[in-house]
Amino acid sequence: MNNSIKITEKFIINKYLRKLNFNKKETFNFTNDASFFKIPKNKKIIVTNDSIVESVDFFKNDPPESIANKIVTSNLSDISAMGAYPYAYTLSLCLPKNINNKWLQNFSKKLFFLQKKYNFFLIGGDLSKSNKIVISSNFFGIIHKGKILKRTDAKINDDIWVTGNIGESSIGLKIAQKKIKLNKTEKKYFINKYLFPNHCYLGEKINNIANSAIDISDGFYGDLQNLLNSKNIGASIESKFIPFSNKVKHLIKMKLIDADFLLSSGDDYELIFTANSNKSLIIKRLSKKNNIKITKVGKIIRKKGIYIDKKKIKIINKSFQHFS
Amino acid sequence: MNNSIKITEKFIINKYLRKLNFNKKETFNFTNDASFFKIPKNKKIIVTNDSIVESVDFFKNDPPESIANKIVTSNLSDISAMGAYPYAYTLSLCLPKNINNKWLQNFSKKLFFLQKKYNFFLIGGDLSKSNKIVISSNFFGIIHKGKILKRTDAKINDDIWVTGNIGESSIGLKIAQKKIKLNKTEKKYFINKYLFPNHCYLGEKINNIANSAIDISDGFYGDLQNLLNSKNIGASIESKFIPFSNKVKHLIKMKLIDADFLLSSGDDYELIFTANSNKSLIIKRLSKKNNIKITKVGKIIRKKGIYIDKKKIKIINKSFQHFS
Repeated sequence: MNNSIKITEKFIINKYLRKLNFNKKETFNFTNDASFFKIPKNKKIIVTNDSIVESVDFFKNDPPESIANKIVTSNLSDISAMGAYPYAYTLSLCLPKNINNKWLQNFSKKLFFLQKKYNFFLIGGDLSKSNKIVISSNFFGIIHKGKILKRTDAKINDDIWVTGNIGESSIGLKIAQKKIKLNKTEKKYFINKYLFPNHCYLGEKINNIANSAIDISDGFYGDLQNLLNSKNIGASIESKFIPFSNKVKHLIKMKLIDADFLLSSGDDYELIFTANSNKSLIIKRLSKKNNIKITKVGKIIRKKGIYIDKKKIKIINKSFQHFS
Repeated sequence: MNNSIKITEKFIINKYLRKLNFNKKETFNFTNDASFFKIPKNKKIIVTNDSIVESVDFFKNDPPESIANKIVTSNLSDISAMGAYPYAYTLSLCLPKNINNKWLQNFSKKLFFLQKKYNFFLIGGDLSKSNKIVISSNFFGIIHKGKILKRTDAKINDDIWVTGNIGESSIGLKIAQKKIKLNKTEKKYFINKYLFPNHCYLGEKINNIANSAIDISDGFYGDLQNLLNSKNIGASIESKFIPFSNKVKHLIKMKLIDADFLLSSGDDYELIFTANSNKSLIIKRLSKKNNIKITKVGKIIRKKGIYIDKKKIKIINKSFQHFS
């Protein structure tokens, strides 16, 4: 790789970005001012928007593969939470002048890999200069008509389910910030969870089973609260069912990390969803079939608030980053 | 306006952004992870993406109304160039901590005004912290099936048309950069053209008349070249027809500004389009009916390149900002 080639915007597009369009007609091979959507009959298209900013959402020297992974994962997580599957995305890249070929190569390679894995393509975008890396992306998902999963439709007595495990990415961030010290193997494991979180793609498979869903992008408590807020209802959670991996359980037991902290922060990108209890069996079958851990953690209750083992918790300092 | 209220993301959304959704169902009132598109039957939806960055595309102390105007105009111009009319947009706002209520108020008021004027609404977005203002937006336009205007379909012998006047925004920028001195009235006039450019919304009215179109966002020469590149064809332009306002003609005559400079730079947000010469009369009628200046400046020719009064010009240093 010759790093001395002058990196113009045209060069970046031709060398790294054009191939991400997977030769889709919709993009006109990036020769026009806009692209168009091809939407299958009887399907709806949904849109979500997430941005990540250097020094805020990632560190300057994080691997470019991790940065690519984050912009994709945070958006695909929203698509899944709505019960949709991914279709396409736009990419607005604000890059410093000193960005080099190796960075661009690794960044775009990771995008290509994730696009292949989850079957979506780059439909357009924009390149700008800036002093810090800022990446903004709109993701488009496809959904059967009338099957949109919402945060707002949880019903009293619904079971509350959580996918995957909570808190591993949070621990990775603490390690990266040098706020907690672990042995080498643990360190590597959790930092990897922080750098390369995976979204849970279960959403499209439960859009006719679940009553409501949200993805965990601001911590379990905060996002559960977001799901409850819309209806002034509450949640009764049994702490023993909250899904932590054995590695995390061990750290909690050793008092190296606080469970409440793990539930209040972190980009888990897992789903919280609620469903009538007569769906339990179907959900367990889905879990097995897709090899996705899904855990019943509690019930929707009439009384406002989140109750852990019958004790009401107080949520402070939750941020609300996204308005769609 | 109390500037001492703590400006949280939730506050910004509730106070300034939520009303921009015009109560459209598609947005779920910003309570979900994504929004959906409602597309009229037999119509297609198109998407374009533009970002603007502090210190690159605008100055830190530019009025917030101007920054709002720029992100909207640059995107609506792309929508128009594709022959579409606006439908909705997403807004990714990366804002410094010290942003105040007055800024947000004026910024969102201008968005509201432009949304009303051109009939589109805010469908979603994202808020982030950053050290500089970075605004990225995806705009969605609607188009009749099969009527997408492309850059790539100019035909030999097509007339070349330009809307509006060229160069006024460029002169405004030169004044703002203190590179040219004019009297107070002229100064005010041109700076206003730089701060508040308007896109030409003619696109949707010529999508069954024109063979090709592009908007002028990187200068007349550069964008004309983009239109020609795709087909390896050329343009023969008569300099006397290039549309300059009387004010600009005067400055050129006084040698205060160079015509070639005006044609090589600047966010004019006018359209260049090509059409068969049998469409001349219809185009002239459209011009009158919509009160939009439309000028025939030349012809598409077989020979590659841009020829001004039969003399080939050389284009250097053109940037290609957008890949859709």
